[in-house]
This record gives sequence, structure tokens and C-alpha cells, in this order.
Amino acid sequence: MRWWTIADRVQLSRPLAIALGDPAGIGSEIVAKAWDARSEAGLPTFFCVGDPRSVSAVWDGPVEVVTGPAGAQACFGHALPVIELPALAPAVPGKPDLAGARCALDSLELALGLTRSGAAAALVTAPVSKAQLYAIGFSHAGQTEFVAERCGVGRDNIAMMLAGPTLRTVPVTTHVALADVPGLLNRALILARAHAALRGLSRDFGIAHPRLAIAGLNPHAGEGGALGHEEIDIIAPAIAELQAEGHDVTGPHAADTMFHPRARAGYDAALCLYHDQALIPLKALHFDDGVNLTLGLPIVRTAPDHGTAFAMAGMNMAEPGAMIAAIRMAAECATRRMEAAAVCAKAA
Amino acid sequence: MRWWTIADRVQLSRPLAIALGDPAGIGSEIVAKAWDARSEAGLPTFFCVGDPRSVSAVWDGPVEVVTGPAGAQACFGHALPVIELPALAPAVPGKPDLAGARCALDSLELALGLTRSGAAAALVTAPVSKAQLYAIGFSHAGQTEFVAERCGVGRDNIAMMLAGPTLRTVPVTTHVALADVPGLLNRALILARAHAALRGLSRDFGIAHPRLAIAGLNPHAGEGGALGHEEIDIIAPAIAELQAEGHDVTGPHAADTMFHPRARAGYDAALCLYHDQALIPLKALHFDDGVNLTLGLPIVRTAPDHGTAFAMAGMNMAEPGAMIAAIRMAAECATRRMEAAAVCAKAA
Repeated sequence: MRWWTIADRVQLSRPLAIALGDPAGIGSEIVAKAWDARSEAGLPTFFCVGDPRSVSAVWDGPVEVVTGPAGAQACFGHALPVIELPALAPAVPGKPDLAGARCALDSLELALGLTRSGAAAALVTAPVSKAQLYAIGFSHAGQTEFVAERCGVGRDNIAMMLAGPTLRTVPVTTHVALADVPGLLNRALILARAHAALRGLSRDFGIAHPRLAIAGLNPHAGEGGALGHEEIDIIAPAIAELQAEGHDVTGPHAADTMFHPRARAGYDAALCLYHDQALIPLKALHFDDGVNLTLGLPIVRTAPDHGTAFAMAGMNMAEPGAMIAAIRMAAECATRRMEAAAVCAKAA
Repeated sequence: MRWWTIADRVQLSRPLAIALGDPAGIGSEIVAKAWDARSEAGLPTFFCVGDPRSVSAVWDGPVEVVTGPAGAQACFGHALPVIELPALAPAVPGKPDLAGARCALDSLELALGLTRSGAAAALVTAPVSKAQLYAIGFSHAGQTEFVAERCGVGRDNIAMMLAGPTLRTVPVTTHVALADVPGLLNRALILARAHAALRGLSRDFGIAHPRLAIAGLNPHAGEGGALGHEEIDIIAPAIAELQAEGHDVTGPHAADTMFHPRARAGYDAALCLYHDQALIPLKALHFDDGVNLTLGLPIVRTAPDHGTAFAMAGMNMAEPGAMIAAIRMAAECATRRMEAAAVCAKAA
């Protein structure tokens, strides 16, 4: 099963913007390798924003510095287009520093701005180091929260979707200690994440009547209260409310029996209650082609579902599969939104 | 990768004992289907303990009532041998009742006794309904705890291993509410489960130098304390102690990146901290051939990693794959223990 089959080759009138992420990580390498694979993978035109030296340091292919999206269209066939945002000092692969963190943040801001303005069709972000960003005063939880704020969207109205070819998961809580998860769960939060997931499935994936399966928190979904009460007190009422709204929502499901092939065929996305409940099955099944998609934004934003991998930076060992999948998914979601907008314009 | 490759056909001098479980569940059907597949799956001689009517109700094949293991050896080639323990009333598939629960418990007790006495080579248990057992006064958490007590083994000295062809996991805590997990974790418990896992890998799987990967509790294994402290306070010290004992133990690992194919190649079993951390990846990857193996017992005991499935009982829909895998694994583990015992006897 492949989910992003809207077209073998997506035709977008505008290129995608890719923020290169931390210049000492594997971001530059996987973006360059994605450009190498552009024909076979059917990738649309994209350009990078970042320090072109971080690309040249790890890749022998042709790089062309451009000043905007139009230049990217002109050169994409023969060179990797980069909008230049040099770090104060060239990054050393595998050795992150504060200059690199500033470059990563500036790159994110510019790529995001070009996407918000409509000059780029969608935003793809390569990995950053949160520790490095925090050291330069970055106060958001991660790139996702930064993007949401710049787009004017509150943090409870976005959701992180992890998507691979045969599974999509959306965690209700994300980067918090496991002991804090039960206390953070409430009906309103589950409803907000479910709404973001359902809208994303129809808006970005073109599923007219999306099916959402919601996990239980406890073993065997609490076994009728014997193994925990969150299912009875919080999760089942939220599901009932979603069903009353007319949504095709099921659960709470025992989390351990939700992710085998027959179970996955029964829903379009699984709403999970904590980070590892969503990430363990996604990465067990789709470690090399998992995409992180931010739902609830006015723009399309994707990212490969992995980190900076400083330990393997500069060794020509990084696999570009997840970056390629992130670019493809961004293009296809952007195409769907444009098609929907065209239908609306025609109807008006 | 197949792990249980000790022999294409295991040759045991004694048959295996299979407790048929709840007679209204799918146990009888999957055992009968396993007998049907005995040649192609290379299964050793086994006999069932339970109500032969629960087999006849769901299967047209030949059933022969026997009085003990010797009778099973004689008839296994042409009929499914059953040691008869009739329920007070014949079970109706999909309609569990107290008579069935009493029959299931008696069957377990007898099959277990024959294994402990040495008349059977190993014990395999079909699924029971805990709710039905509790209704007849059963006071153990499950079959595993009952078996451990009858074998004279304390509950902290056993461990549940979930094993499929490419992954083995061992949960430290099992059937408790997720909110209770952080409070239940301590160094001694992790050490006890790790010791059971390590001993099981060498004793039952023949791995001379087993490699155990231990998961973190929190997202990203706590990210240095930013997302929870259990890794620093409890898990890492337990790992250091195991390493100091000379064991090949690694961690705490971020749970979401432990279960993709390359990561799994780096260990023989993953020690997980709660039920779903162990069961989600196992069932995502091996839903139809996952085996539950109890480590730490003087006997070999396995079970298919699924429940009674009352909803599909009597419909000829149940897949016997996990029961076949449980029988194979029991036979191979029993063979390894016998071979080790033979080596010891020779050396003495």
C-alpha cells in the first residue's frame, strides 16, 4: 500500500522550500541525495535555504546559489538550488556549534516566510539540534511550535502526524515524561487533536470520510476499569462526542493490537495518547521512510522523522529515504490543497 | 531471520502437553488446526488436555481420547490425542460459562502436573478468559502466575517473553495501569527481569553470550533528564550493575528507535518497562506468530500471544499460526534443555 499516489510526478507551479537544518548534521547530505534521486523519485522542484558550504562539505554534486524561487526553477534540472544564508563560520560535520544553530534558525525563518507568502508551495525542514537552539535562546519546544506561532496558530490546534506508507499516527501528548501523561490527558485535548487529525486526513490526504482509531492508555485499553480508568473517564466520552459530531471514530482500542496489518486496514490514522505509543509502531514499520507532518497549519509543512545524526554526519552514510518521502508528501499535500482551492474559486 | 532453527523436525522422547484453555474460545480450533499442519510445520507429538467435545464442536478431524502420554505417542499419526476432562455441560463456542472456566482450570492443572512430573516434555497453554476464571474464585493474575506458583517460583523471578521470528521482548511490568508504572519501577525489579531474560536466552534459546537492550521509560529515553528522570535514577544504574556482572547489556535506549530492522539486529531481546512498550512492536511485527514464553520456570511453558477471541469462536476463522509457533518453540526450548542436561550428565 502506498498512500501518496496522487500523481507519479507532482506538477507544482511553485517550488518547495527546504530549510537545511543544523549545518553540522546530516540535513545537507540527505537533501543533496534527494536532489540526486529527483528523477527516479518523481520529486518536484525544490530549493534549500542555508549555508551552501554545508552542502559542498559533504557532497560533490553541483550547487547553485540562487536569490529566490524563480532562480530555483531555472537551475533545478542541473544543480541543487540554495538560497544562501551563511553561518558565521563554516560548520564542521558532526561538530555542532552556536553559529550553526543561528544559521539553522535563520534558514527556518526564511524558508517559512517564503512559504507563508506563497512564493514556495510548501515547507520541508531538515533536522535541528534542540540543545543547540536552546543555547542561542530559542524558547519554543521545537521547529513545529515555532512554525505554528509564526503562522498564528495556537499550540493546541496543531497536531504532529507521523506518516509512513502503511501507517499514520497522531500523538495527543508529545515530549513530556511518561509519568506526566495521565495528568495531561483530558477530553478537550483529545477532541482538539482528533479534529486536527480528521481535518488533515481530508484536507491533505484527500480522504472524504476519514476513519480515526483512538488508542487506550492502559494495557488492554484498561480492561473495563481493572487496569486503569482513563478509558472510562476521558477517552470513551471524547470518542462518543466525536461520533455524535458525525465522525467515523472508533476506540478506545487496546494499543498492542492496533498496528498489525489487518488492524491498520481499518483506519486512516491512529490517535495515540503519548509519544512512544505513536512512534514505536511507526518507526518499527517505517524507520527509513517516516514523515512528520504538522496538521492544523495554513501551510503544508513536513519533515523527515529522524534527528540530526551528528555521529554519522560527513561520512556519506545517511539514508535520504525519509527526506525524499517528506518532499513527496509535502508536494502531494500542497497539490491537494491547490486543487481544492481551484474548485472553490470555480464555484465562487 | 528465523530464530527457532534448532532442527527442522524436533525429536523429543516425550510428547508436549497442551491445555485447551476456555472450551468456548478458539483454543480447541487452533490446536486441531495445528495437528492438521503437524507434518508441514514439523511439529513433535503433542496431546491436549480438556473436553474433547469442544474440539468436535468446531472441527471434523479425528479425535482420540487417551489416558496418558504413551497413548498420545501411539495415535498422534492418525488422530488428535485428548486426555479427557469433560466440562459439566458442553461448551457453546463463543458463549463462555462457569463450567467452561472450571474445565479450563482443571485442564491447566493436569497438563502442568504432567509436565512437572516429566511425563510431558513441555507445557503449551491455549487462551483462557480471566473474567471467567475470576468468577470461579481464581485468585492469580493469570495462567503464568498460577504455573509459577505450582512450580514453586516467586513472581518476581519469572518474566514474560514475547517472541516472534525477528523480535523478542520482555516487559518489566505487565498488567498494571500506565499511571502506576513509574512508581513500580525500581532497580531490583529491573535486575530480576534482566537476569530472567538473560538466563532464558542462553538456557532456552542456546545463545551463549546473550545481548540485552534495555529501553528508556520516557520519550527519547528522557533526553538527559529533560523529559523524565527514571533513566538517570533507576534504569542506567541497573544497566551499570548488569554490565559490572559481565553481561552484554545496553541502554537506556529511546524506545521508538529500538525496533526497526537494523536496531533489532543488535540485540537478542529487548527489556521493556511496561506492557505496551513490549507488546506494540511485537504485535505490529508478529501478530500471527507471536509466542508468549514464561522465563524462570523449571519447566518450559509457552502460549500463543493472543486471547480467547470468543467473537470468532466456532466460525472456522481462527488462524493457528501463533499456536503452531508456540508448539515449535516449546519443543525447541525443551530440546535445548535436554541436550544441556545430557552434557551435564556426561560430564558428571
